[in-house]
Amino acid sequence: MHHQFYNDYSETAHPACLAAIAHEPMRQEAGYGMDTISAQAAEAIRTICHAPEAAVHFLSGGTQANLTVISSMLRPFEAVISAHTGHIFANETGAIEATGHKVISMTVTQGKLTPADVRAVVAAHPWEHGVRPRVVYISQSTEIGTVYNLTELRALREVCTELNLYFFIDGARLGSALVSTEADWTLADIAALADVFYIGGTKNGALLGEAVVIVNTSLQTDFRYHLKQRGALLAKGRVIGSQFLALLSNGLFQALATHANQCALALQNGLLALGVEFESLSSTNQIFPILPNDAITALQARYGFHVWKKYDEGRQMIRLVTSWATPLDKVKDFIADARDALQHKEI
Amino acid sequence: MHHQFYNDYSETAHPACLAAIAHEPMRQEAGYGMDTISAQAAEAIRTICHAPEAAVHFLSGGTQANLTVISSMLRPFEAVISAHTGHIFANETGAIEATGHKVISMTVTQGKLTPADVRAVVAAHPWEHGVRPRVVYISQSTEIGTVYNLTELRALREVCTELNLYFFIDGARLGSALVSTEADWTLADIAALADVFYIGGTKNGALLGEAVVIVNTSLQTDFRYHLKQRGALLAKGRVIGSQFLALLSNGLFQALATHANQCALALQNGLLALGVEFESLSSTNQIFPILPNDAITALQARYGFHVWKKYDEGRQMIRLVTSWATPLDKVKDFIADARDALQHKEI
Amino acid sequence: MHHQFYNDYSETAHPACLAAIAHEPMRQEAGYGMDTISAQAAEAIRTICHAPEAAVHFLSGGTQANLTVISSMLRPFEAVISAHTGHIFANETGAIEATGHKVISMTVTQGKLTPADVRAVVAAHPWEHGVRPRVVYISQSTEIGTVYNLTELRALREVCTELNLYFFIDGARLGSALVSTEADWTLADIAALADVFYIGGTKNGALLGEAVVIVNTSLQTDFRYHLKQRGALLAKGRVIGSQFLALLSNGLFQALATHANQCALALQNGLLALGVEFESLSSTNQIFPILPNDAITALQARYGFHVWKKYDEGRQMIRLVTSWATPLDKVKDFIADARDALQHKEI
Amino acid sequence: MHHQFYNDYSETAHPACLAAIAHEPMRQEAGYGMDTISAQAAEAIRTICHAPEAAVHFLSGGTQANLTVISSMLRPFEAVISAHTGHIFANETGAIEATGHKVISMTVTQGKLTPADVRAVVAAHPWEHGVRPRVVYISQSTEIGTVYNLTELRALREVCTELNLYFFIDGARLGSALVSTEADWTLADIAALADVFYIGGTKNGALLGEAVVIVNTSLQTDFRYHLKQRGALLAKGRVIGSQFLALLSNGLFQALATHANQCALALQNGLLALGVEFESLSSTNQIFPILPNDAITALQARYGFHVWKKYDEGRQMIRLVTSWATPLDKVKDFIADARDALQHKEI
Repeated sequence: MHHQFYNDYSETAHPACLAAIAHEPMRQEAGYGMDTISAQAAEAIRTICHAPEAAVHFLSGGTQANLTVISSMLRPFEAVISAHTGHIFANETGAIEATGHKVISMTVTQGKLTPADVRAVVAAHPWEHGVRPRVVYISQSTEIGTVYNLTELRALREVCTELNLYFFIDGARLGSALVSTEADWTLADIAALADVFYIGGTKNGALLGEAVVIVNTSLQTDFRYHLKQRGALLAKGRVIGSQFLALLSNGLFQALATHANQCALALQNGLLALGVEFESLSSTNQIFPILPNDAITALQARYGFHVWKKYDEGRQMIRLVTSWATPLDKVKDFIADARDALQHKEI
Repeated sequence: MHHQFYNDYSETAHPACLAAIAHEPMRQEAGYGMDTISAQAAEAIRTICHAPEAAVHFLSGGTQANLTVISSMLRPFEAVISAHTGHIFANETGAIEATGHKVISMTVTQGKLTPADVRAVVAAHPWEHGVRPRVVYISQSTEIGTVYNLTELRALREVCTELNLYFFIDGARLGSALVSTEADWTLADIAALADVFYIGGTKNGALLGEAVVIVNTSLQTDFRYHLKQRGALLAKGRVIGSQFLALLSNGLFQALATHANQCALALQNGLLALGVEFESLSSTNQIFPILPNDAITALQARYGFHVWKKYDEGRQMIRLVTSWATPLDKVKDFIADARDALQHKEI
Repeated sequence: MHHQFYNDYSETAHPACLAAIAHEPMRQEAGYGMDTISAQAAEAIRTICHAPEAAVHFLSGGTQANLTVISSMLRPFEAVISAHTGHIFANETGAIEATGHKVISMTVTQGKLTPADVRAVVAAHPWEHGVRPRVVYISQSTEIGTVYNLTELRALREVCTELNLYFFIDGARLGSALVSTEADWTLADIAALADVFYIGGTKNGALLGEAVVIVNTSLQTDFRYHLKQRGALLAKGRVIGSQFLALLSNGLFQALATHANQCALALQNGLLALGVEFESLSSTNQIFPILPNDAITALQARYGFHVWKKYDEGRQMIRLVTSWATPLDKVKDFIADARDALQHKEI
Repeated sequence: MHHQFYNDYSETAHPACLAAIAHEPMRQEAGYGMDTISAQAAEAIRTICHAPEAAVHFLSGGTQANLTVISSMLRPFEAVISAHTGHIFANETGAIEATGHKVISMTVTQGKLTPADVRAVVAAHPWEHGVRPRVVYISQSTEIGTVYNLTELRALREVCTELNLYFFIDGARLGSALVSTEADWTLADIAALADVFYIGGTKNGALLGEAVVIVNTSLQTDFRYHLKQRGALLAKGRVIGSQFLALLSNGLFQALATHANQCALALQNGLLALGVEFESLSSTNQIFPILPNDAITALQARYGFHVWKKYDEGRQMIRLVTSWATPLDKVKDFIADARDALQHKEI
């Protein structure tokens, strides 16, 4: 296999993360996230987010973060609103429902929930014969690579405030969103708008780790009980804390995401130049070109990627994901091979 | 602080584990536990356990392993039997109950459940106005440092078979149990007796990681669905697989546990020689001496440890935990300081 | 208020049901559904359904029946498929999700799920990153008054068998469906096709009560545990058993439903004669006429009914429900008043 | 069978309850508990309890009431404290755990929880590695027929207030407790002390029905959502409301319970006069005599009752339950037959 564009977690971790983990391994630290390293990382996140009152917790993965956060926000009869493409609705094996709560999905375009969607859900749930919507969940960037801009985020915040909903942002790919050309916001903006969000490490260079930031102080109380109950409290919390310290030093977090986006943009531009169609263009590290079936077959001999869905009789949409670890020459190789495949040359 | 005997996860990880993680970080591997490194580690575990049909999955911690395994075994009205000291009953914030199941506890001595306990629970639950006991849960070593011997394990297996119960062994500290002087069994014995068990990495040198071994083939089906739903499927499964490969090479797993036990034995013998009483003696890496209150206060100035419970008006039981990382000279220092504290000298 | 067409449970119960309850009240019977009266009623149901091996249980309401039955069929990661109009998806406050399971909805027309819908759901859930569909849920009659015919039911049974799904029929209004002009099936057909179904009493003359019929013997085991755990095991089971005995004697169950349907048909025909439009015509006891807003306002002064949804700027769809207890003269009154309202006369 | 002393729900219902249900069956009422009859019954309960601000809801049974109320009070990591004999711990098939919450049991004597028990539980749960106790659950009368007096109730209220716990009283047999010779309190006292309690109808003459009284206004909000989600919202709420109206008229509720207690007292005194031993004497409608095995066998030929537990080699404790429906002559017969059985005469 020449290269895999399956996802952004195919490589182990960025050297800086590995080095951070391996630093002073024999220094004794308190367990279960009460260590000094996690405390420093939490402080670094509060600083970068301009959120001095935020609580920060380090979890091992996105599904774990989503189920722990969302179930902590809801009473038994309350529900969370998601785009139909939202990770919690489509890709987490009913993890939210397993905590007892309905995920109300809205069919969206571009992977993005709108205030109108939120209003429609609330309007459709007026009484006790249905659940009560209580949390708006979005992913930033979305599962199809798009990015909410500041106007869109503010509009969602406003509708949440108006309708007494919490606003939760899944940031598994927040780095890629943050440095995308579409992003006209900062982490501080995210912290000012969301009740809770998380900063994804796993898909941006870390071995594992998501930093959950609870900005709304009323949601901070007792969160460690939720963590422990859901199996999300790591004995050695430093393993994640240390990596976030590394990622947040010297702009590494942004640099890694920028590299991933540049690789994706190069892929996208290269394919566009070959006449390849896209349903929508991406500014983050996932792109979704539409290719003829035979070209896909040819490319699969050398590259790993997911076929996303059938587009028409002769074509399918594929997903290509780049990361901090993607070599630029593999991007060039892919484009060259795609050119040949489209021209029915052997590759 | 001179040294902490709080637990066996105060240090980061053994160098061999850190090296294993850092090996070939840029080699692309499949995500979510489907990587070749996890596959090799699983095979190594099957080999060492003489369990060629076993399924092996790598999870990030003990509570996560317990809740995922137990909820996968039970229908909604079924329950798990545990000693009152069992981790799932006493120390996991209702994690099992949060999946919908009752933990039936029996008050035990020495931290060990007996066939008579199991029979008593089953006899007390004859009909549909109570839950149905379905799983016997034990910890090996137990939460108070004791070890089930082969006769005891076989007796539990027999009662489980007779009463149609599954037998699940929490091996968060299985290494320490395995190399204890009380252990007259092997990992292959454990695999032959349990339906499911796990081999703890976190408390024996790994950064994080528990290897769940599902021996009973009828329980293997669909386990990845349970993992994903509970947030237990790591994107980069290699992070745990690689460490288990390291631990299972050249006897490292046993060597680390042996060191931990030797430190604990040295502590225990040293304190016995000072006339310190114990409710029961331990052959693993946790000991529970009974000390005068003033001696405890004095020792707390230099050492970290948990006060376990009040023993009588003047004394309390403390817990001292050693690990692969405990320096032997700290053990000697502790004994010397304990001698002084018991003689009311300043330490 | 002249008359309410809100629902089919506005009156207490048919005199025969009340008489059955009040019969021999001092005769002692076993509790929790083990009484001889419930046993007789179960036998009567087995006979009428030609299902000698079926297990029958009496529950107090539809939501209770749905949540108890569905959660008894599923492993934690499994899910149920429903029309978007299905009661479990739209009208039960997340009762299924509260037992830990996702309800996968398909947007349907006419309230009916098709084999193609079922296939599409299964195709969209191929792996452990999504739930596994395991039960197909339909309502007969549906929430919008339509009825599945025998061809449609057989096709659903076939797709269930092919795809290893259970087939569960919510029969809260099974009586009305059974006697509708669209029904070309019998209760024996339902029993032959479904794994589990229930016969609704509450909406067809009973004080309360749904008879759950578990035809698939593999689903019968331990169902009383589920009943007790969900709070669905009535201390005095005879209260429901006795009513079903009454309803199933001398064709009362069919007679009551037939009256309800005739009232609805009379309403529908009367309104059609006035030129009122319908999105679809009903053969059961719920009809959904589309009326001008001012006519609705006028009618609301004298009649109770639910406004179902906005149809266009000037019109809304309303729901009129008839029952065993609907007086035919009230039907005539309504039509007359509707005529006046449509002609802008005062009513 | 001469007579059954198995329980207090062997007969259908008191004639007044049956008459109340059958009154004006064709008057249309709103569904789902919004009817005028339930409203009147709620007002009657508020009046008798001197609790003008209380919310009252009518549920169909005790387990349903317990699981709905308790799960409505708790966040996911919170737990309820119960005596080990408590119905929620011993007799409800893990219904509370199925809603995600641990029941913490304390081994008690006389079926009664004490403030010391409550303090011990709270002291044993100081941090996030265990659940947080949040509700104290007691049954009045208890499962073994004893009654908390006013001093005991006040002491429990005080410890709840001090430790920030809710106080919930299961009143499935509140009538029998209320009129017992041990009761030095009124329903108004119960309402003043509990956050939530319920008044049992099913075991005191009603066909079915428990009246849940939510005194603490902060717990009233959204309770109908919980009811609907748990399948506890009856379509025809009037069926329970009407019975409570009947029971609360002219002192019927107290009269029925008084009759039950008198029968039990007569049984107890009659057996005492025969030299029969009791572990403890009861002032309510359940008594627990200790009888020789052969006498039990002889009595079982003519009477139905539960054998409670083995007492010693030759004797067992049995449970005899009386009710509003127990004929006094059956009580006399039982005593006479017990005399014969104890003297080894044929009965």
